Amino acid sequence: MTTNAVRRHDPAVFSFASDNYAGAHPEVLEAIALANGGHQVAYGDDVYTEALQEIFRRHFGADARAWPVFNGTAANVVSLRAMCAPWEAVICPETAHINVDEGGAPEVVGGLKLLPVATPDGKLTPALIDRQAWGFGDVHRAQPRVVSISNATELGTLYTPDEIKAVCEHAHGLGLLVHLDGSRLANAAAALDVPLRALTTDAGVDVLSFGGTKLGLVLGEAVVVLNPAAAHGIPYLRKTSMQLASKMRFVSVQFEALLSGDLWLRNGRQANAMAARLAAAVHAIDGVEVTRRVQANAVFARIPAVVADRLRERYRFYTWDPDTGEVRWMCAFDITEAAVDAFAAAVAEEVAAWRAETSGGPQGG
Amino acid sequence: MTTNAVRRHDPAVFSFASDNYAGAHPEVLEAIALANGGHQVAYGDDVYTEALQEIFRRHFGADARAWPVFNGTAANVVSLRAMCAPWEAVICPETAHINVDEGGAPEVVGGLKLLPVATPDGKLTPALIDRQAWGFGDVHRAQPRVVSISNATELGTLYTPDEIKAVCEHAHGLGLLVHLDGSRLANAAAALDVPLRALTTDAGVDVLSFGGTKLGLVLGEAVVVLNPAAAHGIPYLRKTSMQLASKMRFVSVQFEALLSGDLWLRNGRQANAMAARLAAAVHAIDGVEVTRRVQANAVFARIPAVVADRLRERYRFYTWDPDTGEVRWMCAFDITEAAVDAFAAAVAEEVAAWRAETSGGPQGG
Amino acid sequence: MTTNAVRRHDPAVFSFASDNYAGAHPEVLEAIALANGGHQVAYGDDVYTEALQEIFRRHFGADARAWPVFNGTAANVVSLRAMCAPWEAVICPETAHINVDEGGAPEVVGGLKLLPVATPDGKLTPALIDRQAWGFGDVHRAQPRVVSISNATELGTLYTPDEIKAVCEHAHGLGLLVHLDGSRLANAAAALDVPLRALTTDAGVDVLSFGGTKLGLVLGEAVVVLNPAAAHGIPYLRKTSMQLASKMRFVSVQFEALLSGDLWLRNGRQANAMAARLAAAVHAIDGVEVTRRVQANAVFARIPAVVADRLRERYRFYTWDPDTGEVRWMCAFDITEAAVDAFAAAVAEEVAAWRAETSGGPQGG
Amino acid sequence: MTTNAVRRHDPAVFSFASDNYAGAHPEVLEAIALANGGHQVAYGDDVYTEALQEIFRRHFGADARAWPVFNGTAANVVSLRAMCAPWEAVICPETAHINVDEGGAPEVVGGLKLLPVATPDGKLTPALIDRQAWGFGDVHRAQPRVVSISNATELGTLYTPDEIKAVCEHAHGLGLLVHLDGSRLANAAAALDVPLRALTTDAGVDVLSFGGTKLGLVLGEAVVVLNPAAAHGIPYLRKTSMQLASKMRFVSVQFEALLSGDLWLRNGRQANAMAARLAAAVHAIDGVEVTRRVQANAVFARIPAVVADRLRERYRFYTWDPDTGEVRWMCAFDITEAAVDAFAAAVAEEVAAWRAETSGGPQGG
Repeated sequence: MTTNAVRRHDPAVFSFASDNYAGAHPEVLEAIALANGGHQVAYGDDVYTEALQEIFRRHFGADARAWPVFNGTAANVVSLRAMCAPWEAVICPETAHINVDEGGAPEVVGGLKLLPVATPDGKLTPALIDRQAWGFGDVHRAQPRVVSISNATELGTLYTPDEIKAVCEHAHGLGLLVHLDGSRLANAAAALDVPLRALTTDAGVDVLSFGGTKLGLVLGEAVVVLNPAAAHGIPYLRKTSMQLASKMRFVSVQFEALLSGDLWLRNGRQANAMAARLAAAVHAIDGVEVTRRVQANAVFARIPAVVADRLRERYRFYTWDPDTGEVRWMCAFDITEAAVDAFAAAVAEEVAAWRAETSGGPQGG
Repeated sequence: MTTNAVRRHDPAVFSFASDNYAGAHPEVLEAIALANGGHQVAYGDDVYTEALQEIFRRHFGADARAWPVFNGTAANVVSLRAMCAPWEAVICPETAHINVDEGGAPEVVGGLKLLPVATPDGKLTPALIDRQAWGFGDVHRAQPRVVSISNATELGTLYTPDEIKAVCEHAHGLGLLVHLDGSRLANAAAALDVPLRALTTDAGVDVLSFGGTKLGLVLGEAVVVLNPAAAHGIPYLRKTSMQLASKMRFVSVQFEALLSGDLWLRNGRQANAMAARLAAAVHAIDGVEVTRRVQANAVFARIPAVVADRLRERYRFYTWDPDTGEVRWMCAFDITEAAVDAFAAAVAEEVAAWRAETSGGPQGG
Repeated sequence: MTTNAVRRHDPAVFSFASDNYAGAHPEVLEAIALANGGHQVAYGDDVYTEALQEIFRRHFGADARAWPVFNGTAANVVSLRAMCAPWEAVICPETAHINVDEGGAPEVVGGLKLLPVATPDGKLTPALIDRQAWGFGDVHRAQPRVVSISNATELGTLYTPDEIKAVCEHAHGLGLLVHLDGSRLANAAAALDVPLRALTTDAGVDVLSFGGTKLGLVLGEAVVVLNPAAAHGIPYLRKTSMQLASKMRFVSVQFEALLSGDLWLRNGRQANAMAARLAAAVHAIDGVEVTRRVQANAVFARIPAVVADRLRERYRFYTWDPDTGEVRWMCAFDITEAAVDAFAAAVAEEVAAWRAETSGGPQGG
Repeated sequence: MTTNAVRRHDPAVFSFASDNYAGAHPEVLEAIALANGGHQVAYGDDVYTEALQEIFRRHFGADARAWPVFNGTAANVVSLRAMCAPWEAVICPETAHINVDEGGAPEVVGGLKLLPVATPDGKLTPALIDRQAWGFGDVHRAQPRVVSISNATELGTLYTPDEIKAVCEHAHGLGLLVHLDGSRLANAAAALDVPLRALTTDAGVDVLSFGGTKLGLVLGEAVVVLNPAAAHGIPYLRKTSMQLASKMRFVSVQFEALLSGDLWLRNGRQANAMAARLAAAVHAIDGVEVTRRVQANAVFARIPAVVADRLRERYRFYTWDPDTGEVRWMCAFDITEAAVDAFAAAVAEEVAAWRAETSGGPQGG
């Protein structure tokens, strides 16, 4: 018997809206099928989840332990709750995903206060950390306990291993722990051509949210504890955070597909390369301004609002800043050269059309 | 290229431990593959999630709206939070999953007080509800707001449509809402040979946690609002409860596989039939006492502890009550007649072996 | 200049409703006035709060440390949060104040799951504790961490020092901590004629909620940590629980008035003696049944509902169980012999009047 | 019998550290004594609390309803929780008390996300509100629901009635509610010479935290609902927030003392006048720079760090910004002209001594 479900979408349609618009990598679906059939112990006591530990240790060192969860918000919240007592707080960039994109989950279900810092590029430095790292021992101030950074950042920028080391050394010197939101860690490592541990374990990161979904999983992220002394109660926090999958084997085997070979690297490189290709192509278009360094798989650019609107009739993407007209073009792991080239051509066409219409106007020739 | 993941388990091994030890139904994996490829809007604005609404309405009526989440704890907590103000409380059986199997998630992340009631069979009645439905308007008492029942119950028993109606009418008469934990609703409907709506919408249930995982999904449950006036803020509660899947199409299409045809019914019937078959087989064994009515897919029985231990070397299952020696044997959707017969034979063998060893002893002949 | 406030009540009117209907002991108001004038460091860094530590140590031993808070709910919630990680749970009698009289505050603001146990007399025993002390290490079960008892209990019964020792030894043997809700600890100690530490420190209690309000303060309770290893983060938990008084000197000096001399003992003895006097008086009335042991300052009795209603026109008190007609008569610290005798006479009158009316009826003659 | 408590402090010592270093106004203690004696219904159903409603209505209009709580953090958190669903957020100045001085209580026990805005003077404007008032309907963003302002602000600045009106009109136009932290509202009204309602009810404020402690109470703040449609569940939220006083009469009668006559105004004026006197005195001292407008009862000034340290050996006060040497001098309601003059003289002495020592140095001559 075959499924009653039907295909409802055109798999030839791509977008530049978000890594999450992509589907799953075929190898990941294949892995799910491998893990199917027969019975396995539920709730994470299965052979796939057990085997996963060795795979994570290979990437992140002998002390690493991975706890799969369902999504990135959960990986961050479970990580931070495991690092903080209920009265402790988290220093993060103002632009951090935990601060602006999680609907307030850290506060609402975690009771965590965030201490945001304005940054030029989405990255914290020792000096920026100090803007919020004070008031230790003062009951009137939520006690800073964790510094949380993202790599790649929400602005498409990267920390080098040395920059992360500097953050970790400064944080540890203040008695703070370091959390890394690595929903795009594979992109960062691929871009910098370093192993995953160079940006995490070896740089001093204590707890990592390791992203799988954006890299081609159906779904799955992992809380990865690199410093066992830095996190407490994760099995209970994961359960009470409603993140314990009953048929965990299906989440774990996806990570095996991603990490036991080089799928993570292939996917990270592809996404990054497509962003670089896209940036080069649109940089050459008069009327498009690339606004930020393109280091991973995001391209930020300024284009006229009317161009953006018309382009959106052909491709989905998001406006980043309505005030300035800045847009964000994300390249998912499954974007091809042909897709980039077609999109860049569409940008060029729409800009050209707009310039033709507005020639003689204030922004025209 | 093929996945680097490897099969690590023997798909011929079955158990009687939990519905969650089973894998996914092949039609469900097929559906996931159908939904793959190309780009779809993330976070639930995809065509599969949209199409799912019509499918749920077909089963649950024109007002039904389904909100997929990751697991059963989440379906329950999101449902209850959507029904309760922060100071309101939930009346439930002492044996309810929300009370004993969710690690305290309703309290820890929902801040919800549960008002448990001891029951003979895991079921509430109007009279049992009244044991906790009091103190309205008294600030010293957490305000009862919801009555939460499960069908099938955690004890394998069933509510008939009339019994649910009686609960709903009584609750509504007191100004209370009714939540139904339907992680095994398909089993209940299959056993009673009624449509899903007979046990929910038509009986007066306000909000339903509809279970998919135990019925053969990789993962997926749904908060189903039947009475739109009874639930508030679900989009926000789902997000802040860390239950919003980015690649939602893959959760939604699994529900399509389950509900657009009769897969839910086939799987529910199979599990139930196997439990009935098992109950009949072990009932005939001297030394095994079936302790509860077998109405859905669970068999509770009392066997000597030593028999249980030896049997467990061959098949996994759980002891329900260590004091009385009661064990629980769950039949998942994928249990076959052959598996049941083999297991029943194993029970008979171990009981016989134990009787031989203990003959002349206090429990022997 | 004199205050614009006006006296709005008759200070000659007494009741038997609650210890909290009483006002403040004159010595307490005198102490507040002593502490007034000039400036003192806010938020607890004042000389009165400092001096209080020595006073508490005198009563509770060298390791005791007291943290004043505003009310009893707060003393309990701050104590329990300091003893529990966010996923841990509290075993308590079903009748515990934390379970039935605090509006769900432990769950709502503390995220704490309570594990209630039915008891005959409001008291836990090792055997009763075992009904909930299980599932250690199982993520599906909220992890039992604290046993919470009250002395005197909400049913007016008492634990002896040996009974508390038995609870503590059993709890500690299971790796659990013991919290004592001592909102009426002074009544208990007065009744048993033992020092406060015999019922707490010396019996093995880890953390105490020490009640002041019911003993004659304007307001004030104290979290008293007896075992420093058992509680964490109290300064921060007190602050975030909104229990840090800015002008703390005024709370602390009230405790000094209560505990530096024997005011606590005088007030406890008076309340207890009046309950005993009342019990003896009503016991002699045909038609009144004293339903529970009168060990502290509460008298529980069964009287006809119509008698209760008429009596309530003259004196306030609460019905404890509407089903059985059981009422509760609390004797506050300020109840006098004359007040008791007048009330007992009123009971006798109303019973007699009711008997006269119903003579010949089923309950008469 | 007289109290065993002893006076432990010198009532002639004053400070410029905080309004909370002051004690209680004698009229307030007198009021407490008036309310003492006999029995009153507990938990707010007493005649003093009832009478208080009329007094608040006189100041704040016919719809006003006051709910006394213990402290300012609680007044703010209960107000905001009553205004927000669990997923909603609060726009406030970065310097707001709720953001920087409450230990994270809004997040920790309220689960509330704050959306802070940098301001030049601690005040929000429509344009500043817009920096966070966006993303309505987007589940990824904590939904803005309340604008919270303080008057007087934490920087000693004031909003005029028109400025508050502008904030309220803008907020209401966006579908937002307005909360006013009025821990020093009496100072603001006294300084602006307007009735309390001009800054609240008449300007469009929905819910007010009205401060009593800083104005001379022993303790007591009030949640004052001005727009009944804007707040939900306050009785339950107050209880579960552990803010329901059992002997409420003693909190309520203090507010009666403050508000039934003009004590609030006398105390506000005195504090303000002393700040103005102090500012004038120190302004005249070469080496002291008054850094902010002195509109209420706070003086901010820059003095050499060594001068601050020496001065602190004689008077307590806080450094506001260690980087710039800015200090804060608060004038409580009980500060006298003599105290101000003595303090200003001390400032002058220490500055002069420092100048003498450092003459010839880089900052001298």
